Amino acid sequence: MTDESDALCATEKEIMHATHRALVNSGYAELSISRISDELDKAKSTIYHYYDSKDALLLRFLRFTVDRFEATINTSIGDNPKEDLNHIISTLLPCQLPEEKRQLHSVLVTLSPQALERAVFREQFTEIDTRLATIIEKTVRRGVDADVFRDVDPTHAAEHILATIKGTMYSRLTTNREAATAAAKASLFSYIDSHLIS
Amino acid sequence: MTDESDALCATEKEIMHATHRALVNSGYAELSISRISDELDKAKSTIYHYYDSKDALLLRFLRFTVDRFEATINTSIGDNPKEDLNHIISTLLPCQLPEEKRQLHSVLVTLSPQALERAVFREQFTEIDTRLATIIEKTVRRGVDADVFRDVDPTHAAEHILATIKGTMYSRLTTNREAATAAAKASLFSYIDSHLIS
Repeated sequence: MTDESDALCATEKEIMHATHRALVNSGYAELSISRISDELDKAKSTIYHYYDSKDALLLRFLRFTVDRFEATINTSIGDNPKEDLNHIISTLLPCQLPEEKRQLHSVLVTLSPQALERAVFREQFTEIDTRLATIIEKTVRRGVDADVFRDVDPTHAAEHILATIKGTMYSRLTTNREAATAAAKASLFSYIDSHLIS
Repeated sequence: MTDESDALCATEKEIMHATHRALVNSGYAELSISRISDELDKAKSTIYHYYDSKDALLLRFLRFTVDRFEATINTSIGDNPKEDLNHIISTLLPCQLPEEKRQLHSVLVTLSPQALERAVFREQFTEIDTRLATIIEKTVRRGVDADVFRDVDPTHAAEHILATIKGTMYSRLTTNREAATAAAKASLFSYIDSHLIS
């Protein structure tokens, strides 16, 4: 497990937590370096010392968020691959999306156009997906090795599950199709029950 | 079948085709009303007469693109639900993404942050997803009715397939994980083969 947040100095960690509070308290639309410096209770120049733009800060914040997600998943994962897989899916796609998670997922949607053209964003998006796919793949592989799951290709299954989660996450935030999230999740669980379980 | 493009006047249709050519010839990053008016060979004021901003034009262009996709799918759909489903998936997720489709899909990624907050974009994204889900659902339902597919819930299966397609499409454009697309597609086809086929 790589906890990249350990590599952050104390002030950077404070900036990350202030960004999180600003997102949760005021929402993504209101997010600005000024708003974050209010939460931080330090001058804007403190933030600019570390990040030269709001985008650069958000990019680092994305990574910080994935670090925390990875840490949460790693501590809660047990020895039942099916339950662990359900837990990962339900953490990323809760039935009711709490405002805090909505704001976090919105950062992902908001930055994704940047990843179309800019290498630094693309690399960050690549890393996030690789880390999520690895968590899912390891869980599927444990299930296959323990004969709990059928002999599926863990990489293929993990990419399929991750793509379904991401597609559902993006659609949930950008459409009014409330029933679609529950329907996609129900089918994903049914796929796991009938396709993965031996 | 709703062919919304019929509702466009001749000039609007020309603007849509000019937008498409501008996208294909110069890419999304270079896209501007000026660039589109060059392709149209008419003054920018002609475009502004119909659309008050580049975003408004692109929003209409998204719909125009879905109309064309729907028309293509509807003419190519046959009487074999499994082949039809594979055809829909392969059209939205071709093995090699031609530059033209890459630019079209990029419009979707670029506009998605707008759909987080702005109702008019959100409604358009909702309509696009609903139309795509309906095409997939009808195909699954035909398969279930003809006993070619198992007795799955066509709505659930359609939302799952659409979410996987969308997640794969977004990741393909925003990451460098080339192998992930093929892996997710392979698992999706395997799901159809073993979960849907009776």
